Amino acid sequence: MNPKDDKRTESCGSPVFVHNPHLEEMKDDVLYHFGFGTGTHNLPALFGDVKFVCVGGSPWRMKSFTEYIAAELSMEDPKSEYPNICAGTDRYAMYKVGPVLSVSHGMGIPSIAIMLHELIKLLHHAHCTDVTIVRIGTSGGIGLEPGTVVVTKQSMDATFLPKFEQVILGKTVVRNTDLDQSLAAELLQCSKELNQFETVIGNTMCTLDFYEGQARLDGAFCSYTEKDKQDYLKKASEAGVCNIEMESSVFAAMCKLSGLRAAVVCVTLLDRLNGDQLNVAQEVLHSYQQRPQILVGCYIKKQLKKNSSS
Amino acid sequence: MNPKDDKRTESCGSPVFVHNPHLEEMKDDVLYHFGFGTGTHNLPALFGDVKFVCVGGSPWRMKSFTEYIAAELSMEDPKSEYPNICAGTDRYAMYKVGPVLSVSHGMGIPSIAIMLHELIKLLHHAHCTDVTIVRIGTSGGIGLEPGTVVVTKQSMDATFLPKFEQVILGKTVVRNTDLDQSLAAELLQCSKELNQFETVIGNTMCTLDFYEGQARLDGAFCSYTEKDKQDYLKKASEAGVCNIEMESSVFAAMCKLSGLRAAVVCVTLLDRLNGDQLNVAQEVLHSYQQRPQILVGCYIKKQLKKNSSS
Repeated sequence: MNPKDDKRTESCGSPVFVHNPHLEEMKDDVLYHFGFGTGTHNLPALFGDVKFVCVGGSPWRMKSFTEYIAAELSMEDPKSEYPNICAGTDRYAMYKVGPVLSVSHGMGIPSIAIMLHELIKLLHHAHCTDVTIVRIGTSGGIGLEPGTVVVTKQSMDATFLPKFEQVILGKTVVRNTDLDQSLAAELLQCSKELNQFETVIGNTMCTLDFYEGQARLDGAFCSYTEKDKQDYLKKASEAGVCNIEMESSVFAAMCKLSGLRAAVVCVTLLDRLNGDQLNVAQEVLHSYQQRPQILVGCYIKKQLKKNSSS
Repeated sequence: MNPKDDKRTESCGSPVFVHNPHLEEMKDDVLYHFGFGTGTHNLPALFGDVKFVCVGGSPWRMKSFTEYIAAELSMEDPKSEYPNICAGTDRYAMYKVGPVLSVSHGMGIPSIAIMLHELIKLLHHAHCTDVTIVRIGTSGGIGLEPGTVVVTKQSMDATFLPKFEQVILGKTVVRNTDLDQSLAAELLQCSKELNQFETVIGNTMCTLDFYEGQARLDGAFCSYTEKDKQDYLKKASEAGVCNIEMESSVFAAMCKLSGLRAAVVCVTLLDRLNGDQLNVAQEVLHSYQQRPQILVGCYIKKQLKKNSSS
């Protein structure tokens, strides 16, 4: 292996931590849900230069983000071909352009947690340093104009507490859901400079269910009234909750444990105080979904410019 | 609309229940994560004849199941074209051959719960009756030869209790995870007749996490020893747990609430007492993954034969 491939020799920045003594004893590490591993791929050579990771639920959206960021960074592939690095599996999709990795995570805490375990191991095995990670997603807003972008201050559970409960060996362990406040502030600043859409910093409620878990009235089951729903959302709002989604708590907890600088940037597709159904026209939804991409694209561009001039 | 399209006029069997008074007040119902709804699609005409629904995590596997069942039922499309009914979205994939609907659900409880809310509404709107639903999946076994198929007796949580906790308006509601025992027995009987692979009936543990939540030693984080892991899996085994996966509890709970006859059929990809990593050859994994399909295919064929002769 060319020594330049080993990023340990090039950088003394902040590494990506795993906390698992057993990993050292393993000959190979199969990242099963990515469809590759240390035995088959040279991870330092393939991923050692990654500085930004963007994750989102939908594989299509993460591919479109890759095309967008490639154009923004003037790193377009002339044939516009961005191969899915996880092509051997349909669990997740992964794309890379220069220092930017884009990975889908499916819907819900368990799905993103599997992806993050394998992503953190990937970044660790690849000796990446000084990595910033942003979840770009969609959400339901509370009292916000649809299309507003929320940068998460704290991720809260369904009882409005800033914690994530992880069950280990049948026992519940409580983890902190703090996100990087300076990164959130920098993202808000980007939005001001862009001046294309409204962005706020606020708390995000993370639930295990989209229907009953978010007080929707349009699921297969609903045992509460419109007033019960409004009362619950009002309490959430009083706790500073601006939007509701399904991945931020475990994302915040796992990124904090591994030393990744992390932010959650979600657009609100509707105001939950006015309804539950997502019946906005496709093109409007599409334009809303681009907003977190535009915001994060602006941030990455600024950072790369800053680093190249310093 | 041709009156024959409306299945209410044809059948007086057991319907699919929703428990939500608000649904009646809605003009249209957008099944957002399927990418269609009652306003754009004639659900009774499209889905009214569905009698069997098979669900599984991977979209590729659910397409392959559709091709398999089409051949088994001699209902192959001469061009082998099975369009994805959810082509407008990348959240789920859905295929239909005759009375058999095949739907992917992603990984984890939240992901399958979103799908089930919309599926139950779909079956309800389509006036389907006497529907049997089977989850065909993969799992980690405990003390079983890899490749063994487990038909779930009871779905248990990480403390080995047969319950599913649903958070509604911030409060925890406990739901029953009973599955249809006669259906499980019929599936076991199919396996005996097939005589191609080992099948057992046993309890299934359903967790919210694949790594720490299943006592794996190969995640990004691990704070316990090999002995702690073995002790935990031994306790699970003593509670009758034969395998571990991530969707069965909410699947059992929601199907029971909606009156669907439900079973969980998962193949074990490895014996967790001997390891955590999935490093079996692709062709072996592939042949294991076909086993639940073969078993459920046999069951559907028998049922259709029985119904046509009665």
